[in-house]
Amino acid sequence: MGTHNTNGTQLRALCQRLMMAEGMSAENALICADNLVDADLAGVESHGVSRMTNYMKRLHTGVVNATAVPFVEKEYAGSLAINGNNAMGMAAGSYAMNHCIEKARKSGACFAVVNHSNHYGMAAYYANMAAEAGMLGITATNAPPNLAPWGSSKKYMGTNPIAFGVPTSKTPVILDMAPSVVAMGKIILAAKLGESIPEGWVLDPDGNPTTDPRTGQYGTLLPIGGAKGSGLAIFMEIICGVLAGAAVGPHINHFWNDFENPQNVGHMFMAVDIDKFAGLKTFKANMDQMIAEMKELPKNPGVAEIFMPGEMEVHKREERRKNGIELSDSVYEELRTLSMQYRVEFIL
Amino acid sequence: MGTHNTNGTQLRALCQRLMMAEGMSAENALICADNLVDADLAGVESHGVSRMTNYMKRLHTGVVNATAVPFVEKEYAGSLAINGNNAMGMAAGSYAMNHCIEKARKSGACFAVVNHSNHYGMAAYYANMAAEAGMLGITATNAPPNLAPWGSSKKYMGTNPIAFGVPTSKTPVILDMAPSVVAMGKIILAAKLGESIPEGWVLDPDGNPTTDPRTGQYGTLLPIGGAKGSGLAIFMEIICGVLAGAAVGPHINHFWNDFENPQNVGHMFMAVDIDKFAGLKTFKANMDQMIAEMKELPKNPGVAEIFMPGEMEVHKREERRKNGIELSDSVYEELRTLSMQYRVEFIL
Repeated sequence: MGTHNTNGTQLRALCQRLMMAEGMSAENALICADNLVDADLAGVESHGVSRMTNYMKRLHTGVVNATAVPFVEKEYAGSLAINGNNAMGMAAGSYAMNHCIEKARKSGACFAVVNHSNHYGMAAYYANMAAEAGMLGITATNAPPNLAPWGSSKKYMGTNPIAFGVPTSKTPVILDMAPSVVAMGKIILAAKLGESIPEGWVLDPDGNPTTDPRTGQYGTLLPIGGAKGSGLAIFMEIICGVLAGAAVGPHINHFWNDFENPQNVGHMFMAVDIDKFAGLKTFKANMDQMIAEMKELPKNPGVAEIFMPGEMEVHKREERRKNGIELSDSVYEELRTLSMQYRVEFIL
Repeated sequence: MGTHNTNGTQLRALCQRLMMAEGMSAENALICADNLVDADLAGVESHGVSRMTNYMKRLHTGVVNATAVPFVEKEYAGSLAINGNNAMGMAAGSYAMNHCIEKARKSGACFAVVNHSNHYGMAAYYANMAAEAGMLGITATNAPPNLAPWGSSKKYMGTNPIAFGVPTSKTPVILDMAPSVVAMGKIILAAKLGESIPEGWVLDPDGNPTTDPRTGQYGTLLPIGGAKGSGLAIFMEIICGVLAGAAVGPHINHFWNDFENPQNVGHMFMAVDIDKFAGLKTFKANMDQMIAEMKELPKNPGVAEIFMPGEMEVHKREERRKNGIELSDSVYEELRTLSMQYRVEFIL
């Protein structure tokens, strides 16, 4: 197995061309491509271009509507209810966060929920949009079931991520966290490799702790902090599902293997204009001070540096912008196959 | 050690009389007393009337201003910046959440930060206020340091709780969670009793895992999910401290032993008017369905019932409203001593 070195610009342009070949507008195809490539730049490959084959199939079958445009269904002074219109989740997500940022310039803060949407990629992307605009950004989404409520081992909630972002005078601080101890991808990978997993990651379908990923993958991921992480996942279902008017938990249709029924995923977005509160200059100075103080704290054995949330991803982005992105053989071949299939120029 | 049976009404009235004896208005004293007694009713005694002696000392020394009234410093269409004016934290908290609820009726959602405040009691109280008003409520606060950033064992962030609340057709669903695996109170209690604690609760001051609470109490509580819980605590410092213009982490003055310097705690509040989104009737029906579905899931070995966040507290409140609250000898004696000292009627 080898790798292929490419760069973000080429990869983004290729993904954009592919999605345009399925009828997406140049603008929305670029938004989606940028989200995916940003995940690859940040080292979050699980949410990157490795998903292109599936996204393309979703567009092709029409289970995601390539030409749909999200729209504002209800607008109030400090909030929005947005209908994703079954567009790509990243198109709906960027639309919603852009509207929140714009409204927050007047109303100080803007809260939005989105329904009839799809898998929206990496949550950090939207938190970062707000941070780049000098705002506090918050976003969350629900997702198909992977997590049982505390006390059960039957999956109900998604591993619903919540992300927060703010600017500093240097790089933004971005937290993007799922409420499970680890991602399901890790369990599936360990099962494939025939490896055992630590106790505390999953319960088997009978609700017993297990170190065997082969049974664990059919039980439930364990939430962080027991009932706490379970509660967080439940509230993300409540906000992104029940409040947004989207599907909830097991009623969300699957991303990987359902090409007939739209997912009806829901999201939440929030932007707060820092300049209307602490003032952006003061805020950044105080962020810098807080970060400097934390970095000077004594370190635990084996710890070389204390990192802020998202800081390792920032470093990885810088490194990959300079040295390029290494695509695995399989992802490279998938993109090449798609390019031939859609007859778009394959430049990587 | 015995206990003394009393009820919420008497306990609330006594605490109100005591705080009025320190110059608080009848209204604000009632707000504070109600918050404390609600914690005792819900079984969260750590945030209940057991803190009265300290609150009274804080009012008496003037480190908390008994007669201060919080005020709106900046008002926008969808948000508020509130100055707590060094009033009791519960007075500032209720003021802020009430304003958020009122504004959200027009703007759909309202976000608020509060600075120059004090320990605001049980976070669930404010989430519940919003739920009672038919809204989604979110609140968080920062607090004096108890938690190290991931990679250190030197306390920096508070065990900053975040709480969420929504109504259902029956009792509200309320999540009130700190980002640590356990509360520091549990470590201190184990140290007093000479008991050992499980690994994974604390690090000692050198950053090593320990089961000895005597050294653990001088290290750090461990966050839920490692870097995830640490990141949550950091973002609550960012929102409630840096954005609100309140003190951050170690710059917050201590609640228990500093009677000279105001704490300058910060809080965050948010209310979303459900009727402007899903519609309150539909929302409640869909909440009921989600809860029913979760409760019907298969249960893990040893689990009798799957509880919603806050449900056990709801049951405890009902039980204690019926059977009364059992106060320990020591808390009873503290309240009796305070009553004699302030010459207020002692009826419990």
